[in-house]
Amino acid sequence: MGTGPTAPAASGHRGSLLLALLLGAAAAFLPLAEPSCPRDNSLVKDINQMHQSDYGRKGFSHITIAGALAHGMREVEVWLQTFGPGQRTPIHRHSCEEVFVVLKGRGTLLLGSTSLQYPGTPQEIPVFQNSTFTVPVNDPHQIYV
Amino acid sequence: MGTGPTAPAASGHRGSLLLALLLGAAAAFLPLAEPSCPRDNSLVKDINQMHQSDYGRKGFSHITIAGALAHGMREVEVWLQTFGPGQRTPIHRHSCEEVFVVLKGRGTLLLGSTSLQYPGTPQEIPVFQNSTFTVPVNDPHQIYV
Repeated sequence: MGTGPTAPAASGHRGSLLLALLLGAAAAFLPLAEPSCPRDNSLVKDINQMHQSDYGRKGFSHITIAGALAHGMREVEVWLQTFGPGQRTPIHRHSCEEVFVVLKGRGTLLLGSTSLQYPGTPQEIPVFQNSTFTVPVNDPHQIYV
Repeated sequence: MGTGPTAPAASGHRGSLLLALLLGAAAAFLPLAEPSCPRDNSLVKDINQMHQSDYGRKGFSHITIAGALAHGMREVEVWLQTFGPGQRTPIHRHSCEEVFVVLKGRGTLLLGSTSLQYPGTPQEIPVFQNSTFTVPVNDPHQIYV
């Protein structure tokens, strides 16, 4: 993403991962409040200047490109996240569809299924630069590097 | 996007534009049928290998990264589009929110407003690499290079 805040983690390390996360039905799942996030009301925003947080996790970066709290979105959210080596999300799920686009790096998707009462062994699937995958509503998943 | 089908138009020309378009409420607006698009049921897909079309417009490229017809999406669609020099969308609108992320290049957003009965003169706003903007539900808009 050019020379912006995401560049260091995204461009150099073989073990890092730069993800764009695109989620439907924004209001239903938003996990994090952003009370200190200044509202930028300009129509066209420079992503390199947008509010970035590691939420206390070293080697992690999150930017809400378009969000309910920060931008009044009602149907869709777009996040940009960078995972440094060893970073992982918790195993979690959302009450909405989620689409991932891997902009740089490689990692692993851990995906369970809600179609079984006891999901059993989840699938572990490699993800890589310029790959995409979707996570169905409520399917438990984790991303790790 | 690396060495894939979007690379030639996205990497070289100063006058081109590579956009990721992220739309909510997919089923409500899908403008194009994709009857010849083969379904790829793999969980993780290589965007470089995905079906690409110019829909008869020279210098234009469209890839449905996640879509209702191609992938069964119900809440959100993700498109990747490349505009060569001189390319423009029609002036149009959607019955859903739309988020744009400019991955490469520069162009112009023409944006009207539905808040006025007669929208009057639309705004013309430059867009640039690593910029983002949202188009509210039903606001008429056009993107051109």
